[in-house]
Amino acid sequence: MRRKSFETLACPIARSLERVGEWWSILVLRDAFLGATRFEQFQKSLEIAPNMLARRLNALVEAGMLEKRRYSERPPRDEYLLTERGRDFRPVLWALLAWGNRQFAPGGPSVQIVDAETGVPADPVLMDAISLRPLEPPFFRTVPGPGASEGFRKRHGAFAGNSAPTSAKAARSAQRRLGDANV
Amino acid sequence: MRRKSFETLACPIARSLERVGEWWSILVLRDAFLGATRFEQFQKSLEIAPNMLARRLNALVEAGMLEKRRYSERPPRDEYLLTERGRDFRPVLWALLAWGNRQFAPGGPSVQIVDAETGVPADPVLMDAISLRPLEPPFFRTVPGPGASEGFRKRHGAFAGNSAPTSAKAARSAQRRLGDANV
Repeated sequence: MRRKSFETLACPIARSLERVGEWWSILVLRDAFLGATRFEQFQKSLEIAPNMLARRLNALVEAGMLEKRRYSERPPRDEYLLTERGRDFRPVLWALLAWGNRQFAPGGPSVQIVDAETGVPADPVLMDAISLRPLEPPFFRTVPGPGASEGFRKRHGAFAGNSAPTSAKAARSAQRRLGDANV
Repeated sequence: MRRKSFETLACPIARSLERVGEWWSILVLRDAFLGATRFEQFQKSLEIAPNMLARRLNALVEAGMLEKRRYSERPPRDEYLLTERGRDFRPVLWALLAWGNRQFAPGGPSVQIVDAETGVPADPVLMDAISLRPLEPPFFRTVPGPGASEGFRKRHGAFAGNSAPTSAKAARSAQRRLGDANV
């Protein structure tokens, strides 16, 4: 894969993908959130070649998302624990889960997020914790932040005036949703 | 890459990754949300080989996330518009952006989500839209849903009693956060 330029890496999405932008890494994290810590547990769940799994685990340790801890000296055995940075990835994983459930689960969700006490399924929505409004256009948008370089600012606005174009069908549906929200 | 078993594909995260589990696909979607529609626009932004970009665009069209529309007959030219399913991916992209800003932006965020009217930066949190509580353990957890097969149920609980282990540092920090929340 061709190396990205610095300008592109200034994007927080590209930066994040540098750490987890790979199928297996995300499934390793998923299993870590489900409680897997040991090599054999990940391997049994993911059914991947040991060398591939070792590579992914090490990459996640290097990215500061997992912490390696020796739990046995003879034979030498390590376990892998989520770090604070790794745990902080949960909203991404759960947003992905929610999208999968909305889009690809015609027979009902196979996994869902529920209230741990009552078991009532949650309605996962990315919101602004300050105003408690859903993070959706046209009410919210992305703009260059204080850490943006001049070049990055230009790039971010490259398609301006042309923002988030949608198919006619999607536009109608968005209109309907907005209508609902205003009720 | 080895083909996943059906049991694993029943997981909504794995299913989602089948559609977008690749670095470039997510950056293509990012640019689509910024307003890119034309091949040259994506190419200029992503700096990838035309055949690679064409493959990613076609994969996203096949996954139902982009819609291809001919805007010129001579020469034949297509543009790529986000479908409803593609637009529905925004929370995942923004959750990834927020995680990148929290974890990898020591100089301040280069892109941020703001209130479109006031410009005030949002605090993006995945919440339960029903109870307006953040989707975090121990208050929320994932469980097999109505669409789960017997085999999948077993697998989901494979690490039970061992859920979301964390490093000592992360555990202390979670404790602090919970303390704050209870104030």
